[in-house]
Amino acid sequence: MIKIGIIGAGRIGRVHAEGITNGVKGACVYAIADPFLNDTQREWAGKLGVKNLYTDYHEILNDPEIDAVMICSSTNTHADISVEAIKAGKHIFCEKPISQDLAKIKEVMEALKGTSLKYQVGFNRRFDHNFEAVREAIVAGKIGDLHMLHVTARDPEAPPLEYVRVSGGMFLDMTIHDFDMVRFLSGSDVVEVYAAGAALVNPKIADEGDIDTAIITLKLANGAIAVIDNSRQAAYGYDQRAEAFGSKGQIAVGNDTVSTAVLSNADGVTAEKPLYFFLERYMASFIKEVNCFVNAIIEDKPVPVDINAGLAPILIAKAAKKSLDENRPIKISEIEF
Amino acid sequence: MIKIGIIGAGRIGRVHAEGITNGVKGACVYAIADPFLNDTQREWAGKLGVKNLYTDYHEILNDPEIDAVMICSSTNTHADISVEAIKAGKHIFCEKPISQDLAKIKEVMEALKGTSLKYQVGFNRRFDHNFEAVREAIVAGKIGDLHMLHVTARDPEAPPLEYVRVSGGMFLDMTIHDFDMVRFLSGSDVVEVYAAGAALVNPKIADEGDIDTAIITLKLANGAIAVIDNSRQAAYGYDQRAEAFGSKGQIAVGNDTVSTAVLSNADGVTAEKPLYFFLERYMASFIKEVNCFVNAIIEDKPVPVDINAGLAPILIAKAAKKSLDENRPIKISEIEF
Amino acid sequence: MIKIGIIGAGRIGRVHAEGITNGVKGACVYAIADPFLNDTQREWAGKLGVKNLYTDYHEILNDPEIDAVMICSSTNTHADISVEAIKAGKHIFCEKPISQDLAKIKEVMEALKGTSLKYQVGFNRRFDHNFEAVREAIVAGKIGDLHMLHVTARDPEAPPLEYVRVSGGMFLDMTIHDFDMVRFLSGSDVVEVYAAGAALVNPKIADEGDIDTAIITLKLANGAIAVIDNSRQAAYGYDQRAEAFGSKGQIAVGNDTVSTAVLSNADGVTAEKPLYFFLERYMASFIKEVNCFVNAIIEDKPVPVDINAGLAPILIAKAAKKSLDENRPIKISEIEF
Amino acid sequence: MIKIGIIGAGRIGRVHAEGITNGVKGACVYAIADPFLNDTQREWAGKLGVKNLYTDYHEILNDPEIDAVMICSSTNTHADISVEAIKAGKHIFCEKPISQDLAKIKEVMEALKGTSLKYQVGFNRRFDHNFEAVREAIVAGKIGDLHMLHVTARDPEAPPLEYVRVSGGMFLDMTIHDFDMVRFLSGSDVVEVYAAGAALVNPKIADEGDIDTAIITLKLANGAIAVIDNSRQAAYGYDQRAEAFGSKGQIAVGNDTVSTAVLSNADGVTAEKPLYFFLERYMASFIKEVNCFVNAIIEDKPVPVDINAGLAPILIAKAAKKSLDENRPIKISEIEF
Repeated sequence: MIKIGIIGAGRIGRVHAEGITNGVKGACVYAIADPFLNDTQREWAGKLGVKNLYTDYHEILNDPEIDAVMICSSTNTHADISVEAIKAGKHIFCEKPISQDLAKIKEVMEALKGTSLKYQVGFNRRFDHNFEAVREAIVAGKIGDLHMLHVTARDPEAPPLEYVRVSGGMFLDMTIHDFDMVRFLSGSDVVEVYAAGAALVNPKIADEGDIDTAIITLKLANGAIAVIDNSRQAAYGYDQRAEAFGSKGQIAVGNDTVSTAVLSNADGVTAEKPLYFFLERYMASFIKEVNCFVNAIIEDKPVPVDINAGLAPILIAKAAKKSLDENRPIKISEIEF
Repeated sequence: MIKIGIIGAGRIGRVHAEGITNGVKGACVYAIADPFLNDTQREWAGKLGVKNLYTDYHEILNDPEIDAVMICSSTNTHADISVEAIKAGKHIFCEKPISQDLAKIKEVMEALKGTSLKYQVGFNRRFDHNFEAVREAIVAGKIGDLHMLHVTARDPEAPPLEYVRVSGGMFLDMTIHDFDMVRFLSGSDVVEVYAAGAALVNPKIADEGDIDTAIITLKLANGAIAVIDNSRQAAYGYDQRAEAFGSKGQIAVGNDTVSTAVLSNADGVTAEKPLYFFLERYMASFIKEVNCFVNAIIEDKPVPVDINAGLAPILIAKAAKKSLDENRPIKISEIEF
Repeated sequence: MIKIGIIGAGRIGRVHAEGITNGVKGACVYAIADPFLNDTQREWAGKLGVKNLYTDYHEILNDPEIDAVMICSSTNTHADISVEAIKAGKHIFCEKPISQDLAKIKEVMEALKGTSLKYQVGFNRRFDHNFEAVREAIVAGKIGDLHMLHVTARDPEAPPLEYVRVSGGMFLDMTIHDFDMVRFLSGSDVVEVYAAGAALVNPKIADEGDIDTAIITLKLANGAIAVIDNSRQAAYGYDQRAEAFGSKGQIAVGNDTVSTAVLSNADGVTAEKPLYFFLERYMASFIKEVNCFVNAIIEDKPVPVDINAGLAPILIAKAAKKSLDENRPIKISEIEF
Repeated sequence: MIKIGIIGAGRIGRVHAEGITNGVKGACVYAIADPFLNDTQREWAGKLGVKNLYTDYHEILNDPEIDAVMICSSTNTHADISVEAIKAGKHIFCEKPISQDLAKIKEVMEALKGTSLKYQVGFNRRFDHNFEAVREAIVAGKIGDLHMLHVTARDPEAPPLEYVRVSGGMFLDMTIHDFDMVRFLSGSDVVEVYAAGAALVNPKIADEGDIDTAIITLKLANGAIAVIDNSRQAAYGYDQRAEAFGSKGQIAVGNDTVSTAVLSNADGVTAEKPLYFFLERYMASFIKEVNCFVNAIIEDKPVPVDINAGLAPILIAKAAKKSLDENRPIKISEIEF
């Protein structure tokens, strides 16, 4: 039984704690640390049967009983805690992004060198039933050679301006999942990126130096061309689709809904909107990614999303931002690392 | 060039005249007869290039130039005009139903005996792209042996009570198409029928001794079981579907729409309603059935819907009415002919 | 915390034990009894944290710690164990059907009289997301007054002949869910039933006096007409659909799939088959029904599927069998109870 | 009755001749000219009732009976014949593109100045039922302000290399329709374009200096961003879709099929492929655009696709080519006209 310590009891930390307890075989939540642990969280942890609750995550790092940690704290702490956890000999599951600061990621990579520790990054969408189906079809040769790839990701609501201000920009905050998805689905690295974007949802987002709408073209190492379209606000909910086109055909995945109900009346023939909330939409993927992490530890095999896979979308995001600023295609190799 | 005389310049007569002119190869409209020919119809006929316009259809029957007639007059005249046209040596396309009176149909059958004249009945839905696709899949063995068949036919609006009064009842007026569809799709005769029905759309229809809603079960000679569901009024338009289920799979056809547009907004994900008007929905089938009739004449081969195929649904309709009245399954053989 | 004893550790018993442990709030599995408890089951129970394992279910009935029992034993024991459990003062969740023997059901009803015990029957499909959506639309008036209802239920594979022999016949074994679904969706009792059926999947099923294909018409107390179509074997998987049609529109639900993937290639545009296995298809409903049972206990409110709701489909099934045998519509009131 | 002379009796000339005869009210084909008029074409014209057949199109221009000409000759003759026809006082319907040579287009524009002649360019897809539905939804405000637009256009088969060599390149030959579609759907001019492209279908197309796969980003004057994706070869047929996304929702149109049939069997749930051949797919639009042209003459109102609308996609195509060559976004204003 792999004993896991969860660092950070915010929304995603709680999601993982419940997922491990109810849905991950071979692992349990042994401890939870959060500097702002309140009564509600303590009660919640009690129900889950987690007895070791700390405000200082070092207590988790120092406990030899604990095999692995999940870093669910705020983004700017991910890298430092990663380095400490590596030194403490813990396997690590780190929420994305590792860091917005490339130098920090380098430190984590350095720390990992020579160890046999597992380090997985939380790109959960790779474990989603729909996107897995696309990847499997491509790998099985069902569409032949990949020619074009299209990822659509639109949020149901734009974040508050205070969040936008500290988010690192839409590419690092939101599109990063799609950059990973392009790499995952295509099985190829990205070579060059061109981004067109604007603040069309909310002009005040432009005042913060950010955008809320973008179409991003990516040239891939395998010769294929990908396009991502993003919006911070889709009136009909959380729109998460992908389409891959190749020499032998095309595979597309649409949105999930609460039910398959279709109502026909005088107004038309109406199906349900996509699931609105990302936790509802992607819950199964959050559990599956941790199952894979735990299996990688138990069977001592590579994690499915390693630190290099965690780094790549950040480099693409930085190239995309540069492309937007300079209005020209940017090679990923132009981003120094 | 097959010269056709059209008897009856009402709605369906005009549909056929335009269809022949614009879409039927090897045939032309040579004459039109209608006792109530008005100026609008004369102008319309002029535009179509039809010069021979009569108020008495005998002028068509007596014209040796004319090869074939299309009987588009009121239902109660179909059989008598058929007999006259047979005696005049004309090929005949007769709108459905041949007659509500079985004795009259017998007269037409008698008159046909020994002639080599073509006699086609206007069950146009057999020529519809969707239902043809179902039939072709079944013939091609794509669903294996047929086990169950489901025909859904719902009108967009209930007819006026005056019409209901003279319609011969829903089974003869509306379901007759579906009885034919069951025979066409299954390639099998119907052996027994059980009808459950009620006036749920408009209780006044019950006062006329009729129904507006029905579910009819049919046992087929090939062992399969069919079900028809009918409503005189679907709030979302003209609902025309079929589903065939067999040992190797299922094939289903849905409704046609003006476009494939799907609108996603805060209210849901909404596609278009089915085409509302039967002439719009089935226009191509009206042209195709006449093309087949003309080809049967030109190539001297059997018509696709002969007089026996025209009779069968009437017998089933009469059995269904008896079933409804007596609340028991009725064998078609119980209907005397 | 409601302490539950599970009687019967076969497939459905294990499903409920896992469902309660992982997904039912306010309840836990306190004991499991099964006369044939083997090592695999003991290990499985251990992992779930269930310590009280018995071969004699009376140990559960006699344990005052236990609040409620789930009767997951073989069908012919459901009623007797129900009566014993009532006498022991336990709330009861009984898998469907209560019994194929109406006298036995009467005994359970008698035993229940005067107690305040909860008695829920396991018609899990009422708790399915798709069928709930249909029911909710009807209740919300979205389709107006109900006129017609269609339930499609087709199994992926016919059961072995040995099973058919002891199953009580297709109507009691399989269609019983659909009889319940008609009552649930319509919110109405069934008044009369007419069944057409045959052994088209496997003629040997006819040798056992049973059928594998049926179309069943039901007249409802509210005036609507329903139709159920059943097959023991759909080549494309487990086909579970419903359609309700009313004065203001129609609502239909289709099948669930593993993903929304659609592959377009030279062969066509292909979506996934329905989920094949009933446990996969209905897993969430098994958990939800028990949640509702537990809530009914905790909040002392009526269970959503009480013993009368458990009885009704059995009466309809018996009427349907009589209809098939006598080839006439049968009133439910003709079945003596 | 508007008398039309058709110049060029190749495929598209014949399509228009048949369309006018069978489907355009208020107009007839009065003459056809083609330098290579053969017996098959003469017979075909005879059946259509067209008596004036010429090998020299000047006979059409010189005939005062003729009101309008349709220029369906080879692309490199469109502009010169246009100028001659204007001088002859004929209304003109010119197939797209007017010319690949901007100077030639200027000559036509100059010739038109001061006349009251109608000049329509053959961007038929604007008259397609699906794309019209998108445009209408946008104009009706159903998706709010337009933020993103996506046009997918994939041919079923790559053209022969000999054709590629003289085609003017994919952007002028194929994407030109999509550039027009972006302008039509958005109701906005294009300001800047960035094109990523490659020869992935057939590397020999690269040897001809052309591409067969492209993703093109367009910045619009109204602030929205559009993306076009093109392939010269989709294994599943002719893929013609569009999606518009705005502040209040999204509207998408898919492909047309021969029927709505869906086959469910052990292989999956399979719908039909898109219509394969562009003439089948767009036949109704070819007829509708000429109806609009004829109406514009009869009612003396503006044509729906005037010479400026005919020019704009050519400028965008040239900018897209420049973008591909220089790998940078190109402003349309960089293309000299």
